[in-house]
Amino acid sequence: MAKTGSNAPIGVFDSGVGGLTVAREIMRQLPEERMVYFGDTARLPYGTKSQNTVIRFSRQIVRFLKTKEVKAIVIACNTATACALEEIQKEQELPVIGVIDAAARVAGDVTENNRIGVVGTTATIGSGMYEKALKQYNEKAQVYGKACPLLVSLAEEGWLHDTITEEVVSRYLKDLQYKSIDTLILGCTHYPLLRSTFRKVAGENVTLVNPAYEVAMELRSLLQERALSCDKDVEQAGKKYEFFVSDAAEKFCELANSILPYDIETVQQINIEDFETEDFREETTCKKM
Amino acid sequence: MAKTGSNAPIGVFDSGVGGLTVAREIMRQLPEERMVYFGDTARLPYGTKSQNTVIRFSRQIVRFLKTKEVKAIVIACNTATACALEEIQKEQELPVIGVIDAAARVAGDVTENNRIGVVGTTATIGSGMYEKALKQYNEKAQVYGKACPLLVSLAEEGWLHDTITEEVVSRYLKDLQYKSIDTLILGCTHYPLLRSTFRKVAGENVTLVNPAYEVAMELRSLLQERALSCDKDVEQAGKKYEFFVSDAAEKFCELANSILPYDIETVQQINIEDFETEDFREETTCKKM
Repeated sequence: MAKTGSNAPIGVFDSGVGGLTVAREIMRQLPEERMVYFGDTARLPYGTKSQNTVIRFSRQIVRFLKTKEVKAIVIACNTATACALEEIQKEQELPVIGVIDAAARVAGDVTENNRIGVVGTTATIGSGMYEKALKQYNEKAQVYGKACPLLVSLAEEGWLHDTITEEVVSRYLKDLQYKSIDTLILGCTHYPLLRSTFRKVAGENVTLVNPAYEVAMELRSLLQERALSCDKDVEQAGKKYEFFVSDAAEKFCELANSILPYDIETVQQINIEDFETEDFREETTCKKM
Repeated sequence: MAKTGSNAPIGVFDSGVGGLTVAREIMRQLPEERMVYFGDTARLPYGTKSQNTVIRFSRQIVRFLKTKEVKAIVIACNTATACALEEIQKEQELPVIGVIDAAARVAGDVTENNRIGVVGTTATIGSGMYEKALKQYNEKAQVYGKACPLLVSLAEEGWLHDTITEEVVSRYLKDLQYKSIDTLILGCTHYPLLRSTFRKVAGENVTLVNPAYEVAMELRSLLQERALSCDKDVEQAGKKYEFFVSDAAEKFCELANSILPYDIETVQQINIEDFETEDFREETTCKKM
């Protein structure tokens, strides 16, 4: 594969719109970088799906992003990071980072009582990846995970500041509060949209960690280390930001324009299944329980 | 294509587990019939996706079901019925029915004040297909649709009899109640699981119509008319009920076993994308709004 230059775009992908909270942070913190974003809106959400399926979808997306000659890939989805990052990193030469590692490092660092809560999708929490990462940075960390499957729907319904959402968050956080956590990782890219509700329910004494913010910081360091930062003085060819989705572009735009600091001009729909790789395909059976 | 005999199975499909409320009714009302069920668990839900995507997914599934030599197909998903039934019927020789028509006929018949509410996914309500069908059976019908995107997640979270669910249903039904509806179609296959909450919120004076029940009745008539009913005296070859999914079988089993009157023995995972048909593929762009 031809070496991709430092003026190439960064590839960012997510199961849908949630990853735009990561794209937003990259735009803020690395304003000179170009970006190609893919949202797998035809197959979202990933959070309720199995690891093998999420790996297969992620491989297809990586294959697509590589046709755009990206210089690095950010998996802007906690579920895909939890399920597929290790596999993708093994398979790819270009740098690939996910949203879990940087957030775990920060959380492991800021906690004072070493009691850390993680909220996320069923798949993210079930994977135990946050706990694994946290233990690397803070071996004393006690990690308490809680799957919150309703919160993505509530965020997408637009009930961001709402008594029902507050009640749902309260119920989900109850277990974690009994554990006296002092740090809470918002381990799903939709959750920063519900930040004020988390703040209200969790109280002022709990530090909220936003992986979207942390991964943008990590990306900046990574690009600097590998001499891949964009050359500000070179005239850029092509669009600065490109957006691709697997379902209808219009629907994506609506939500996207409420998350990003500017309105997206064009979104292209592609058939992501065309980027199928030769995967291990297994027929599984579920024996009578 | 070889003519499929009356002892062939019925093909039933849904985006996931919701269609099992339809499968359950078919098992009850047509206990002698064999069935092949497919749940598209890798790509669920359909309710937030665009019509073209739902048509493409439905075509792949029909192609798969035909490899099982089904004698008829039931689209056990309101969204897929709303978005894809007409297309599929045009393309197929074998009988294909959906969940909307029978429910609309019954609702159009039982209403006394001709004010009918429909609750369903964003895609189902947005399609206007219930209204179209209702007008065919009752031209005086005033139809009020309400998309309830949170209810599938609440049902799958298992919060079936819950104050939060009651509050969400109350909020969704408020608009319909102002319209003085006397009949309410539960236009999503998950909603019968929330029937008691709907009953409580809507009150005793509103007739609830369950499309799962009505489509099983319609299927029975259809099979009789076309002389396709199973011959009770013939020894059946093969399994009575077969279940296929596109994501991990285990996850499907858990929910399935809480919906069906017996525990599923085996579920097979297949790669539904292998059944891709030669579709019209379009790149769409979303112009700046």
